[in-house]
Amino acid sequence: MRKLLAHPEDTAGGLMTSRFIAVTEDMSAAQAIEQVRAWAEDEDEVFYLYLIDQEGLLIGLVPLKRLLLASADVLVGSLANRSPIAVRSDMDQEEIAYIFAEYDLLVLPVVDDVGRLVGVVTVDDIFDVLEEETTEDMYEMAAISSEERTGRPAAGVVRLRLPWLLVCLGGTLLAGAVIEGFDDTLSKVLALSFFVPAVMAMGGNTGIQTATVTVRSLAIGQGQWGLVGRELRVALGLGSILGVLSWGVASWWTGDALLGGCVGLAMGAAVVLAAVMGAVVPLVFRRIGVDPAVASGPLITTLNDGLSLLLYFGIAAFFL
Amino acid sequence: MRKLLAHPEDTAGGLMTSRFIAVTEDMSAAQAIEQVRAWAEDEDEVFYLYLIDQEGLLIGLVPLKRLLLASADVLVGSLANRSPIAVRSDMDQEEIAYIFAEYDLLVLPVVDDVGRLVGVVTVDDIFDVLEEETTEDMYEMAAISSEERTGRPAAGVVRLRLPWLLVCLGGTLLAGAVIEGFDDTLSKVLALSFFVPAVMAMGGNTGIQTATVTVRSLAIGQGQWGLVGRELRVALGLGSILGVLSWGVASWWTGDALLGGCVGLAMGAAVVLAAVMGAVVPLVFRRIGVDPAVASGPLITTLNDGLSLLLYFGIAAFFL
Repeated sequence: MRKLLAHPEDTAGGLMTSRFIAVTEDMSAAQAIEQVRAWAEDEDEVFYLYLIDQEGLLIGLVPLKRLLLASADVLVGSLANRSPIAVRSDMDQEEIAYIFAEYDLLVLPVVDDVGRLVGVVTVDDIFDVLEEETTEDMYEMAAISSEERTGRPAAGVVRLRLPWLLVCLGGTLLAGAVIEGFDDTLSKVLALSFFVPAVMAMGGNTGIQTATVTVRSLAIGQGQWGLVGRELRVALGLGSILGVLSWGVASWWTGDALLGGCVGLAMGAAVVLAAVMGAVVPLVFRRIGVDPAVASGPLITTLNDGLSLLLYFGIAAFFL
Repeated sequence: MRKLLAHPEDTAGGLMTSRFIAVTEDMSAAQAIEQVRAWAEDEDEVFYLYLIDQEGLLIGLVPLKRLLLASADVLVGSLANRSPIAVRSDMDQEEIAYIFAEYDLLVLPVVDDVGRLVGVVTVDDIFDVLEEETTEDMYEMAAISSEERTGRPAAGVVRLRLPWLLVCLGGTLLAGAVIEGFDDTLSKVLALSFFVPAVMAMGGNTGIQTATVTVRSLAIGQGQWGLVGRELRVALGLGSILGVLSWGVASWWTGDALLGGCVGLAMGAAVVLAAVMGAVVPLVFRRIGVDPAVASGPLITTLNDGLSLLLYFGIAAFFL
């Protein structure tokens, strides 16, 4: 118990149980079976015995089935799988979950820094880890602190969400300042304002899509720069289609083909720009050691809002 | 093999293996051990034997450890845990994952519609299910089809994403029509346009936060209407703070306290409205049998955009 408390909750040491059956090379199968019998009468979930040497170093795993089929006088050392997969007690729980998934494991022995067996993590504990890590990712993409999970009252939640929302508010007010900077253009062509929601929102949507794909593929260990290439081609495709469509709609709506052209051009550029941000920012964040999910929600949306508006009014001011 | 192919991939029948060791009540422990020996020499992952009756109905689970410790002439029927948890072959994989997590299982027997044992799902298959379902949820929140996971080329991805984006484009153009409807007010008070990004984006952000919390708590089986109550109190808190703050900033920026009041009022109302949508829409969707995650991404954002603008310009037209 004391040992478990010494390990951080989200590491192998914090997840493991210290209850396991250790056997040594010189034991016979019959002796090993006696170990199992002595261990716990009412505990049915015994699937492996752990083979250790004189120093306590983990050297093998003995599946219960081999023990069942062995003659009584066979040495357990001969029944063991050697060089079992094991992890150090300070390994992070997310990495442990990867190892379970990768090797289809049911148990994973935990060793200390010299290789002595100190515990065992079982697969059912990993379910909780996966659930926790997924919630954390989804929450971070919406700028929600994972502290919210502990069932806080409304006032506590307000305190947790407010700081990020204030950052976003600041960002969107800056986006408003962009509009103010172009108020000359806007007052001449008031119809420009009709397309502000469309340019902002389409940039936001495509940015979130790209960021979601990037964050998720990083989370399941598939993220690479090759993905960025595909997302850029997707963005060029979507940007072209949405741009041409917006150009048509805006021209027909306002009866002003030049205005329509500005809307279409800004729409296309905003979509491509948002996708670049959505693909690159999570990868950069990971490179510098920040959780990619943090980068992908409101931060990207707010940045995209400002940049989209700058593009839109910049293009409009230039042409109109 | 034929049996497995007859089951949809995402059900118990599609996940299960038909390889398991069945024993009957009248067998001795020694006979059961011979079954294990005959079964597969090189297969170490045997942890349970399955007790069936003459009709093949599943009636118990025999942990390998009990067999190991039993005398040779004991009947296996006396070693079994009776009434084991089992699922029908047509059960959805997401429900199966819940059952594994809930009961900390390593294996889950699968029975047909009369209760005959037809296969076994093991916990390592459930890892892939969890990963798949999580990706599906995250993708749906960003209106990305889960078909994208199969590694399509850019053109295919464009085709998959375009329909939803067109719906959103339509929605945001309607939001633009809202602005056009108030162009009289806007041309008189051009400064109103400076706060369009802030009102839209803050509604969007708080709506996505509430929707994320709701969707995730539904996914891990905690969703209830009580959550809606808390989210509403959070929204009232955040709406008040952000509203008062926006009122101050807008008044100072434009030097017009009435305009500032309109911005603040609209901001507060937009935040509360967005939270109501974010909490209620996923729950309603689930009630009518649609995946809640679908409701929570671009759909909510686009609806919020339109409603926020309607609120903002409505309030402004009324007071200014």
